[in-house]
Formats: sequence, structure tokens, C-alpha cells
Amino acid sequence: MASIFSRIIAGEIPCYKVAENEKFFAFLDIAPLAKGHTLVVPKREVDYFFDLEDDELSEMIVFAKQIAKKIKATTGCKKVATVVLGLEVAHAHIHLVPMNTENDVDFKREKLNLTQEEFVEIANSLQ
Amino acid sequence: MASIFSRIIAGEIPCYKVAENEKFFAFLDIAPLAKGHTLVVPKREVDYFFDLEDDELSEMIVFAKQIAKKIKATTGCKKVATVVLGLEVAHAHIHLVPMNTENDVDFKREKLNLTQEEFVEIANSLQ
Repeated sequence: MASIFSRIIAGEIPCYKVAENEKFFAFLDIAPLAKGHTLVVPKREVDYFFDLEDDELSEMIVFAKQIAKKIKATTGCKKVATVVLGLEVAHAHIHLVPMNTENDVDFKREKLNLTQEEFVEIANSLQ
Repeated sequence: MASIFSRIIAGEIPCYKVAENEKFFAFLDIAPLAKGHTLVVPKREVDYFFDLEDDELSEMIVFAKQIAKKIKATTGCKKVATVVLGLEVAHAHIHLVPMNTENDVDFKREKLNLTQEEFVEIANSLQ
């Protein structure tokens, strides 16, 4: 069965899309740690990040860099954190999290509750 | 002034080295979240991860992948997490953290207290 991310990429599940090219797709995390928290995924469904081929990994991190630049410019954060965990969804994904303190990247923190309008506004600002 | 990581790379501060090539250097985190927790740094001292050039970023993630493979094989963890925060040391670095649950990558957890012998043994197993 297709992963939830593959279903998002296919348009079967709605998302707040940020960017897309032939190989990668980026959209807002709907349980964000901060405004601008974005997920970057390869369209090829691979579970473990480091099972991606070298060239895929390379292209994915450069794709993520472009989005991180926009997140930093838009949110005014100090840096954008890069986090790959991946035990919950078996489709490799990079979390890009705007960060002003390292505490901002505590995945146990309560997530933000944003309205649909806020998500749309953030996604638009990052496109 | 050179960053603490540049001083480690230069051999001015001791470390438990895991791997090195012309551009990158990997050594054990001395305040590890888990046995095998490794830091990967570029020899070129750049503060922010996404300020690295595209080719440097690409080479760095592929270098990290090789080390992550060894960490996974050696520790038997489910996956190796990839985390870039970087507000504490102004020299870009990737944390590679062996992970069996996402809780293993909670940077607020108490760090392991390993003996020098344990660090040496782990570093040797990853080389």
C-alpha cells in the first residue's frame, strides 16, 4: 500500500504544498513545531533515508536547502534545523524546522494549532 | 578564532575519530544520546549547514551515509537519525544518532556517561 506521503504526492490526500520537482515534494507539516515547519520527501517511496541512492540523497539535501532558505527569509528564524527520524512513517522525510533556540526542535513539545487560513498563508509565502 | 571542531580536526583537542577524508571529519559525540552517536563536520569552517555549497552539502550527506551504515551494522539499531541543529557550536555538524524509538533522539535526555575504554571500543568498531 502506498504510504501516506505517496498519497499526498498523488493528490489523494490534501496538503499545503510548498515545492515540487520531478523527484521531490515539500509540504507543510500539519502538526508543526513552528510556523514554516516543512516536510521534504522523495517521490520514490523509500523507507529509510540512508537507503536512498547517493545521487538521490545529494539532490534531496540541495532541494531542502532551497526551501530552508525561503523558510529562514520568511520567518526570520536564526537557522532552519534539519531532522530525519522516520520511525513513524515508512517513507523517508526531512523535517525543516525554523529555530531560534534548540528547544524549538523538541519533538515532544505541544504542536501548534494553526487555522487553514494560516497554513495557506504560510505555504503561499514559501512557494 | 578556530571553532572547537576545527581544533579537534587539527588535533589540538583530542577526540575519538571515526572517519576522515579530504573534506569531512567524523568523531564520537562525548555527550552521546546513545552508543555510536557521531558528529560529522566539514573541514571548511562554515557556521550554518545550509550555507555550505551545494556540492559540499551533497558530499557531506553521502559521507554521513557511509558512517550511518557502520553505526547501524555495529549497534543493531533500527535506523540512524540525522539531526542538524547548530545553535551551540558555530561550525556546521550532523548528529548521527542510533535510534530504536524516536525518544532516543530527545536532546534533553540525560547523556550517557561512557568510560574512555568504551569510547575507544566504539570508535574502533566504526572505523
